[in-house]
Amino acid sequence: MLLFSALVAAMTCFTSHASFSSSGDPWLLTPGPITTSLTVKKAMLHDYGSRDSYFLRINRDVLNRLLAIANGIETHVAVPLQGSGTFIVEAMLHTLISERDCVLILSNGAYGQRMAKICEKIGVRYQTMAFPEDTPIQTDLLRAYLSDHPEISHVAAVYCETSTGMLNPIQEIARVVAEEKRKLLIDAMSAFGALPLDSKLTPFDAVALSSNKCLQGLPGCGFCIIRKSSMEQTKGNAKSLSLDLYDQWERMERTGQWRFTPPVQIIVALHAALEELQTEGGVTAREKRYRENSETVLQGMKQLGLKLYLSEEHQAPIIMTFLKPNHPNFDFTLFYNRLKEKGFVIYPGKLTTVESFRIGCIGDIHQHQLKCAVHAIEELFRELNINLNEELV
Amino acid sequence: MLLFSALVAAMTCFTSHASFSSSGDPWLLTPGPITTSLTVKKAMLHDYGSRDSYFLRINRDVLNRLLAIANGIETHVAVPLQGSGTFIVEAMLHTLISERDCVLILSNGAYGQRMAKICEKIGVRYQTMAFPEDTPIQTDLLRAYLSDHPEISHVAAVYCETSTGMLNPIQEIARVVAEEKRKLLIDAMSAFGALPLDSKLTPFDAVALSSNKCLQGLPGCGFCIIRKSSMEQTKGNAKSLSLDLYDQWERMERTGQWRFTPPVQIIVALHAALEELQTEGGVTAREKRYRENSETVLQGMKQLGLKLYLSEEHQAPIIMTFLKPNHPNFDFTLFYNRLKEKGFVIYPGKLTTVESFRIGCIGDIHQHQLKCAVHAIEELFRELNINLNEELV
Repeated sequence: MLLFSALVAAMTCFTSHASFSSSGDPWLLTPGPITTSLTVKKAMLHDYGSRDSYFLRINRDVLNRLLAIANGIETHVAVPLQGSGTFIVEAMLHTLISERDCVLILSNGAYGQRMAKICEKIGVRYQTMAFPEDTPIQTDLLRAYLSDHPEISHVAAVYCETSTGMLNPIQEIARVVAEEKRKLLIDAMSAFGALPLDSKLTPFDAVALSSNKCLQGLPGCGFCIIRKSSMEQTKGNAKSLSLDLYDQWERMERTGQWRFTPPVQIIVALHAALEELQTEGGVTAREKRYRENSETVLQGMKQLGLKLYLSEEHQAPIIMTFLKPNHPNFDFTLFYNRLKEKGFVIYPGKLTTVESFRIGCIGDIHQHQLKCAVHAIEELFRELNINLNEELV
Repeated sequence: MLLFSALVAAMTCFTSHASFSSSGDPWLLTPGPITTSLTVKKAMLHDYGSRDSYFLRINRDVLNRLLAIANGIETHVAVPLQGSGTFIVEAMLHTLISERDCVLILSNGAYGQRMAKICEKIGVRYQTMAFPEDTPIQTDLLRAYLSDHPEISHVAAVYCETSTGMLNPIQEIARVVAEEKRKLLIDAMSAFGALPLDSKLTPFDAVALSSNKCLQGLPGCGFCIIRKSSMEQTKGNAKSLSLDLYDQWERMERTGQWRFTPPVQIIVALHAALEELQTEGGVTAREKRYRENSETVLQGMKQLGLKLYLSEEHQAPIIMTFLKPNHPNFDFTLFYNRLKEKGFVIYPGKLTTVESFRIGCIGDIHQHQLKCAVHAIEELFRELNINLNEELV
């Protein structure tokens, strides 16, 4: 029976050419750039002027949809910024933290550490509260720290720590920060659009997100959703022209336009992607699909004898870290290249202590493709004579 | 005879549907985003991982081609950066100017002023040498200034000042800067790819440019071409993580990869655009086409009685500023909207003293389209009962 279902899976993968996407590319099982729909990519087949009224309407609609996803239409504003995720995180820290402020950075992975590095570089006062990479942020320790450190004005946290796949308890963090009367900044890069983030349930001052990742647009633009009352107080904070979100917001409020040449194709593609998010059923439906995707991968990898780095309870349905198998025939580069030939691109690990690799579950990709990915990995293990379950027999 | 040629022009424009581009969009007669070829846009119909070997090859080839355009393969390096032109200019100033340095900014328009604003914001020591908007940079004054100010280590200049269309004498500036033993930074945003910039004839330490504009790619990425020997000395200069070109360069040298998620579609589109530049015959051929384009516009506008802001000798063949005609029926917004309906998008002026508008001549656009644009403006003037030559009769 098991053999039969494996056979059916193999045949489906073969006959439907599931191993390459609609654009003929390997499926990107990565934290981004991810696989997008052809509709999203085709939206870029036009030239728009930066002052074009159609483009400006699309731009406004994108911002409104992002605000709606965060349930912040009345209370927050959305500000776009050219660049990758790191650019918008740096811009958020530049703009939201004044010279009188001090931000506490909660870190349990590379992206928490990156915020500290940014603060160091740009001269923003900060402190760090670090946790091991396999441990979620501990809110009891956070509460105690805030009680002891009245100089802390802001807390910055990563929702899904992409370096491990860790799901941090963002709602609980937000509750503690609000109760302790501080302001919360969230790096929601690999969470926004797929994990719930309601500004009423998870009060925040600012959230940084990307056009790519769970929104399933293309990389090239970031956004910051900022509480209106805070936004108005940030004038002059940023020691940067390009990364000044106040300046960008103020100009856009006044004229409807970007300050500097916008990545027009990336914005119209994101608009198409946000339409698809709505058609899919919004964040709830997308989370459900990603959970199914990650469950498929997790069960498949477990059967092959691979070990998830995190406890399952801390695992976000975004990207999973697996420990590098202790088998002489497993070489990551070979594994990566051979799997790409079979139509699936995975990602190297980013752990500081142990060797690992990552498999992403986000993008325009469904359970069927992930079943095929699992099948391809099974097949590859056979070809490479890797049987991790041998010892268990 | 004149009537006959006007009729022929009108018919050609009508019959060949020249008033809309191959993607069905109005022609963008702007400083960017500009009209690109369908081939360039279609290059974006794929998903690439950021570590994908094909993408990394394309990325490397883009950098090499940019170096070749600047004749700097042996002496310089090319560093990409996510974002618009202002991002790469800010990154260039962050990275190239150390705390001990002081940059003299040569300014005769908005983009010169913007460099001063950036230095002010990011805390880079600078002085400004300002010229009127209709006057090119005066190199005799520059030489005298450098003699009198030994504290100046760098000079920053804009090649084509997009706010007016001014062609600054960059080769002469470079000669003076070299003779005075200072280092030159060039904002070549709306010049690179169409105006000559040979590092041997115009010695520079760094040049900032964009994926868009005269290279005819799409907006979303900037590049800085930096003298190798200077690049190596810039470690730790930038008070920014995102905008640190040393860090970006060092990582790319070591791993071939970007530090942060690259705008993969923008890079592959630029690669296609650089292929087209080569097919066209390189910078010389492109400059020739842009000169024909701008000549067509200039002669057409003159015949309608419109006045070019700059003296023709100072006009770059990139974008031209025309004074707002002193006629009661001329309203820019109405003119802009009606002209867009006819298939041509122009741009508002950016002069500080007088009202004006701009017409760009760059992008995947040829003399035929500009003849049609002139024809459309003639037609529109008739429809709006604007005859600027009446007084001359």
